[in-house]
Amino acid sequence: MTTARGQETRERIVRAAAELFHLHGYYHTSIDAILQRAGVKKGNLYFHFRNKEELGYAVVEWFAAQFRDIFARTTGSAATLREQIRAFFGAMEAYHLEHRFQGGCPFGNLALEMGDNHPGMADHVDTVFRYFEGAIARLVEAAKERGEVRPEVDSEQLAQFILSTFEGATLITKVRKEITAFRHCREAVDAFLATLQPTPQGLAA
Amino acid sequence: MTTARGQETRERIVRAAAELFHLHGYYHTSIDAILQRAGVKKGNLYFHFRNKEELGYAVVEWFAAQFRDIFARTTGSAATLREQIRAFFGAMEAYHLEHRFQGGCPFGNLALEMGDNHPGMADHVDTVFRYFEGAIARLVEAAKERGEVRPEVDSEQLAQFILSTFEGATLITKVRKEITAFRHCREAVDAFLATLQPTPQGLAA
Repeated sequence: MTTARGQETRERIVRAAAELFHLHGYYHTSIDAILQRAGVKKGNLYFHFRNKEELGYAVVEWFAAQFRDIFARTTGSAATLREQIRAFFGAMEAYHLEHRFQGGCPFGNLALEMGDNHPGMADHVDTVFRYFEGAIARLVEAAKERGEVRPEVDSEQLAQFILSTFEGATLITKVRKEITAFRHCREAVDAFLATLQPTPQGLAA
Repeated sequence: MTTARGQETRERIVRAAAELFHLHGYYHTSIDAILQRAGVKKGNLYFHFRNKEELGYAVVEWFAAQFRDIFARTTGSAATLREQIRAFFGAMEAYHLEHRFQGGCPFGNLALEMGDNHPGMADHVDTVFRYFEGAIARLVEAAKERGEVRPEVDSEQLAQFILSTFEGATLITKVRKEITAFRHCREAVDAFLATLQPTPQGLAA
């Protein structure tokens, strides 16, 4: 059984690891660096995590919780699909600017850094991608019901497209250390969503 | 001066490094593994490259040459912008299937794997991204001249959007080991391009 104090120590370790992995990558971050940043002893870490890989999975979970919150908050405060997607991209744009383009997408980073060497990590990251795909697809379905999107639009396909554009724009923004590509992609996604609205009456083919 | 034989040795080293970096990542690939695969001695490698990082830059160049060729060949054999983009995505889809989803995008991989620790590598990778952005933007400009795309479409923005979607779809395909997301993105990009065609006469606002 883990005590409240043990739980707090675990969280300190995960947060320290998350910040270091995000800035420097998984392989570039030593266990010692994590211990130092968290201010805990090696025994504490190995009480909670068998190895660095298991800590990596906890870090994916930690980031996923943050991004799920941002997604829920931004999309929940907007009325239409276009506003929802603009709000989420907008929050992420602010995030990149605030972090001066360091970090990028923690899930994309981990997935590409670990390559094909860690199928377990790829699966963990994919769980996060599938969560966001599903969440976006549900927004599209709700938009269809409100009459904002034509019924024949494939929600799953559109969700994969938006997520892919988002991941690619984040990657290029991280490489380039400036926001233009990300902003251009937000505008292009918005322009595409505008074309999916039902044809105005009277213009119907 | 490098002899023809020296040049051949250099190419063998770069090819071996490219294949290993692509499969296992930069950090996971040792100099010894590269020497073994290339069948050359350590002295040969250090005659051509000061260190692993310099070899990494040569690998970026090697991959860039391959992908520039594929891009030129596929887009050169198609008549319209939509056909050109479909042809390039199609060739890349075949590439993923042939490689059983291992590898992914060598530029995206290197950029995210090396994170913010190697700004030099980020710059090299960005040079490749900018090349493809420019090449796509020129295709869009040519399509405008042929009357396939409305003149007010921003070529640079559209090129960044297509490249970002391509990179993101490649990342998700690599994580997921199946082609659906990539194919969905190709179809969505195609659908978006269709909406950029000039309004048919008689329907003009």
